[in-house]
Amino acid sequence: MSADMLSLSGQLGEALLARKWTVTCAESCTGGGIGHAITMKAGSSAWFNQGFITYSNQAKSSLLQVQTSTLETVGAVSQQTVREMARGAARAANAEVAVSVSGIAGPDGGSDDKPVGTVWFGFYVDGAEMQERCVFNGDRDAVRGQAISFAMQKLIALLRQ
Amino acid sequence: MSADMLSLSGQLGEALLARKWTVTCAESCTGGGIGHAITMKAGSSAWFNQGFITYSNQAKSSLLQVQTSTLETVGAVSQQTVREMARGAARAANAEVAVSVSGIAGPDGGSDDKPVGTVWFGFYVDGAEMQERCVFNGDRDAVRGQAISFAMQKLIALLRQ
Repeated sequence: MSADMLSLSGQLGEALLARKWTVTCAESCTGGGIGHAITMKAGSSAWFNQGFITYSNQAKSSLLQVQTSTLETVGAVSQQTVREMARGAARAANAEVAVSVSGIAGPDGGSDDKPVGTVWFGFYVDGAEMQERCVFNGDRDAVRGQAISFAMQKLIALLRQ
Repeated sequence: MSADMLSLSGQLGEALLARKWTVTCAESCTGGGIGHAITMKAGSSAWFNQGFITYSNQAKSSLLQVQTSTLETVGAVSQQTVREMARGAARAANAEVAVSVSGIAGPDGGSDDKPVGTVWFGFYVDGAEMQERCVFNGDRDAVRGQAISFAMQKLIALLRQ
């Protein structure tokens, strides 16, 4: 797992270096795990300056300018929230690339509509925006681990396009 | 390792819940790993709202109000920087407890004065401040892992005093 993540960390760094871009992260359910993965590779200060761990709704609003109306109407685990998180993080960090994550890692907090394992991802790449929803299996640690891996793999894929 | 960290995460949560306090983190070399550890325990939203991954000097200043003069005179890996990081994080997050980390995870960046593995930690607990320096052995991943464990253990010890 750690070796796989180090490989992803290196691939992401190479892709960012090639474009002279920096990346930032806005994390809810992963709690900093994506930032930790991005900085696994030595030399990552060349492509990573800062990240935001926004666990509470208030933090999403105050640090990333997620609209209170968005959180009240569609909730923190939603396409619109991760869109605003990624956009807000890119702006706050002055980064060309951002990834955001908001999900239900469990074991509590699930519903019929949004079962445990539901994770929304937001991607911002030089002005282009994309969101994706996954439903992962396993316990809290497994859901968080898969979310971190997915975020890293998707970032790499988007930068290679 | 993950089981150990989950245990530390739970112990920290219990200690914070007992005082009805929240914790925040300001991370440089650990890159989000402490936030990830704090949020391993289910229910951690009761004691954790937000954290700051401040990898660059500019991020330390803009997000945590670390003085530019501090960074210029004693550098990012110093007692005064982690003191200002922890204090700034507590204020920004409106948290009673904060931990900050700044170190040289390697393999590059070491010097005679500050060898690879040197990590400064700052702790802020309800107005009281404390800093500690460690020099860890091993590669980049080992240094970061030990720094995350040390931060968690020290937080728990300080809250139990």
